[in-house]
Amino acid sequence: MAYIELNNPYQGIRGLLVYSPDTAIPLLELANSLLQTDSELSKGERELIATYVSYKNDCRFCQLSHGGAAAHHVQCSLDDIEAFKKDMQHSQLVSDKMKALLNIAAKVQQGGKNVLQEDINAAKELGATDKQLHDTVLIAATFCMYNRYVDGMNTWSEEDPATYMDASKRMAEQGYMRKETLDMIGKRKEELAAQK
Amino acid sequence: MAYIELNNPYQGIRGLLVYSPDTAIPLLELANSLLQTDSELSKGERELIATYVSYKNDCRFCQLSHGGAAAHHVQCSLDDIEAFKKDMQHSQLVSDKMKALLNIAAKVQQGGKNVLQEDINAAKELGATDKQLHDTVLIAATFCMYNRYVDGMNTWSEEDPATYMDASKRMAEQGYMRKETLDMIGKRKEELAAQK
Repeated sequence: MAYIELNNPYQGIRGLLVYSPDTAIPLLELANSLLQTDSELSKGERELIATYVSYKNDCRFCQLSHGGAAAHHVQCSLDDIEAFKKDMQHSQLVSDKMKALLNIAAKVQQGGKNVLQEDINAAKELGATDKQLHDTVLIAATFCMYNRYVDGMNTWSEEDPATYMDASKRMAEQGYMRKETLDMIGKRKEELAAQK
Repeated sequence: MAYIELNNPYQGIRGLLVYSPDTAIPLLELANSLLQTDSELSKGERELIATYVSYKNDCRFCQLSHGGAAAHHVQCSLDDIEAFKKDMQHSQLVSDKMKALLNIAAKVQQGGKNVLQEDINAAKELGATDKQLHDTVLIAATFCMYNRYVDGMNTWSEEDPATYMDASKRMAEQGYMRKETLDMIGKRKEELAAQK
């Protein structure tokens, strides 16, 4: 149960986005901009970074919803995603370069200053570009935000990973600025305006 | 020196916003939406939450730039801001209700799950509303992102708090979606498009 009265039945960040429509739009645009592009890092690689950081932050809703999206992109099972989260270094899902980038993401999860020149060098030696380093750090940083928003407000979330698959498929295929989501947020914005 | 070639001379998050124009706009819209309103929490209170979390994350650029904006809003000295950061519980700048909200912000900085029902109850007993609790948690969460972005990329920043005051005054008075900033980002976007 969320710590505040959300007035809607949605789990995880969805309940918060509908509760607070003004902040919802930039939060969704940011996710869309970082996760719905194949530029330099594939959508699957981007969702795996999001999943890994959310796992490190122990945020159930984010790690299961984005883990589902990652599984859809890279065409693997949810068991593969679970194994990846628990032992990224030995996962078959990611390249050595991605492992070096995920190591940086894990450092960002601990705090920005934990990222050292040697971590950057290790990734660059495996072929990481400036844009890949930038996007890895920013995806990791944004999920440190989303995870804290979801858990700091104590939102509810389903326990069974399989229940996330329909929504995760929509996230993967249609992105984070779907008409259905925007309509739901727009409706709430009108309700709030009418109350004033 | 930033870990990547930013191709611009700007310090802190400004260098990153210009480097990555697509993600810059939602990042600025989010800051503007959370910090440039007096709804339920004043602009000064919102900037104090941002400053306090940035101090806890040891992010120099963010704590000095937003500390300057807070000082401008609440009409206090930079020494008062320094004293507030170091000993918030005894600061004259904030009410008891704000101290309970800042306690929640500090819990969010440690991780979303650190916020307990008793922290929420303590703030509610001092008059905190659902919207104030929501905005406190989200401001704290967003600065856990901005701080990690700024420090995870190892951006440079001035050491002397006084050098931030002009920019902090503009932030406080004109917000985070200033024409000058948007023009700078738009120009970079055109340059990147021309390179493709």
